[in-house]
Amino acid sequence: MTRPFLAADFVAEEVSARTGFAGNRLDRLAEARDESTMPAALAHGEARGYGIARGRLVVDFSESPRGLIPLPELQQLQPKADRAVLLGFDGDAPRLAVPVAADPDNLPAPYKAVDFRSLAIQGLLPADELGQVAQAGSLLNWHSSARFCGRCGSPTELRDAGAKRHCPSCERDQFPRTDPVVIMLIVSPDGEQCLLGRSPHFPPGMVSALAGFVEAGETLEMAVRRETFEEAGIRIGDVSYHASQPWPFPHTLMIGCMGRAMETGIVRDEAELEACDWYSREQVLEVFAQSNAPGEGELSLPFPMAIAHTLIRDWAEGRASL
Amino acid sequence: MTRPFLAADFVAEEVSARTGFAGNRLDRLAEARDESTMPAALAHGEARGYGIARGRLVVDFSESPRGLIPLPELQQLQPKADRAVLLGFDGDAPRLAVPVAADPDNLPAPYKAVDFRSLAIQGLLPADELGQVAQAGSLLNWHSSARFCGRCGSPTELRDAGAKRHCPSCERDQFPRTDPVVIMLIVSPDGEQCLLGRSPHFPPGMVSALAGFVEAGETLEMAVRRETFEEAGIRIGDVSYHASQPWPFPHTLMIGCMGRAMETGIVRDEAELEACDWYSREQVLEVFAQSNAPGEGELSLPFPMAIAHTLIRDWAEGRASL
Repeated sequence: MTRPFLAADFVAEEVSARTGFAGNRLDRLAEARDESTMPAALAHGEARGYGIARGRLVVDFSESPRGLIPLPELQQLQPKADRAVLLGFDGDAPRLAVPVAADPDNLPAPYKAVDFRSLAIQGLLPADELGQVAQAGSLLNWHSSARFCGRCGSPTELRDAGAKRHCPSCERDQFPRTDPVVIMLIVSPDGEQCLLGRSPHFPPGMVSALAGFVEAGETLEMAVRRETFEEAGIRIGDVSYHASQPWPFPHTLMIGCMGRAMETGIVRDEAELEACDWYSREQVLEVFAQSNAPGEGELSLPFPMAIAHTLIRDWAEGRASL
Repeated sequence: MTRPFLAADFVAEEVSARTGFAGNRLDRLAEARDESTMPAALAHGEARGYGIARGRLVVDFSESPRGLIPLPELQQLQPKADRAVLLGFDGDAPRLAVPVAADPDNLPAPYKAVDFRSLAIQGLLPADELGQVAQAGSLLNWHSSARFCGRCGSPTELRDAGAKRHCPSCERDQFPRTDPVVIMLIVSPDGEQCLLGRSPHFPPGMVSALAGFVEAGETLEMAVRRETFEEAGIRIGDVSYHASQPWPFPHTLMIGCMGRAMETGIVRDEAELEACDWYSREQVLEVFAQSNAPGEGELSLPFPMAIAHTLIRDWAEGRASL
């Protein structure tokens, strides 16, 4: 690489850039890869890897927390070398994700395994590295779900340093899966309230924006309307895009939208939501002012790392429009 | 269903609604399905199905072209009943997609098999039905690629009338895959030109907006920047969302964006693009005025059914902003 794909004066004020896991600036060079790419990357003097132990990042706590570890140091954690993937390049230096067999609950000092949510919430890593970890998590989750060919059932092989898998039996190539999800802040017809719901798995008292997978044959706007109607029985008029976020659980793209309700009478899907209600701008601002973590206080909202937080805060503070 | 999820005064001016394949208004009720759903749908007096023969729609040309066919009439086309999927409900009436074994090149009169692109270009079906066909194509393409479990290699079973597949061996559920693709009209720093490229598989003389799959761990904005740099060597500042489109080849969600170039010197990826150049607003408007089909004349642009057309036309006519 002679020239980075992001200009130095890259847009810092972009809303998507404010979401958790969004900071990845590696050059992936997926199109330029072949079977020589991984051996060359492993042999590079500046190669570093993220160790992933059962879905958690191995963090070196010897000094300030460090996620990116020289490959020789990862040896003691029983790396699964045949499952390692190349994330991309930081300048010329290869950055890898390396699944390790070591027990995440009993790593040798100075290593500890930290789940991705905690990494983001606690700000343990620089934004760029947190974004690389999200890429690592999504890719490894997909690889472990695509070890056999869905078309013919034969074992597949990792190719192009992890940019695809190949079925030697039926010759099919498969590429990493990314699931688009719409997450929408629905605003009342008069613009003064927003619709928030409670999933059964949320901490006590926490509410958030509604969300759901985009289904086959939908535009984003139609997915927002369908999901909102399914979960809350509310019909939606105008929809606008606000921001997006990579979400490595297991390999999701969160697409954040605003939607204008055409009615206020909620018909809650009781299987999906424990509660669903309209909240005024003042109620929401008061919760933000208290800075409650999710589950603290009577009412709480998602952590700043979640795009739901961005949507709700930008609306409440007047930075999101329809 | 007692109430449709789309209000009668549903936003007609939405840009996404102007793209091909976007008209689907079925109530899918995916969450409400179980193993009784398909038998009930098949037994419903108003049930209708789209026959799909090797990826093409069976159209009845006896009077005006008809895609939605009563199930008894599909019998003569050797339906693969165990692979049929429920798309959703039009009011109370079930709408299905039924793969048929009949040879698409030798169907009995009055049936002919028409590929999805031609359906959209020729306007053979109402927009709502064309959208349902896109859903059918995406779903059936996915089902045929997920017949075996990617995690354990065992045969999977269609469940919930096609809303998922289940692996009886490892108990994993799999849901239909939708691949997000960014397609972006890149505008020159002064706003007066746009960047269009030629893929080797385009008809002679046709150029279009650049596009590529969203990769793991990216925001939409970063995917636009990475793809544009990979294909054209151009670095991008501001990015904005314009519209989206379902695209059943094989199961894609096109996410249309505008992007502002920070430089004009093109470094073309010669493997991906035969040509890539800046075109003035006047050049583009002149091509639209000629109404050339792709491949006609010296220079041509995509058909109106493609979101690339929407992006280019909306920019040229001043309806798209950054």
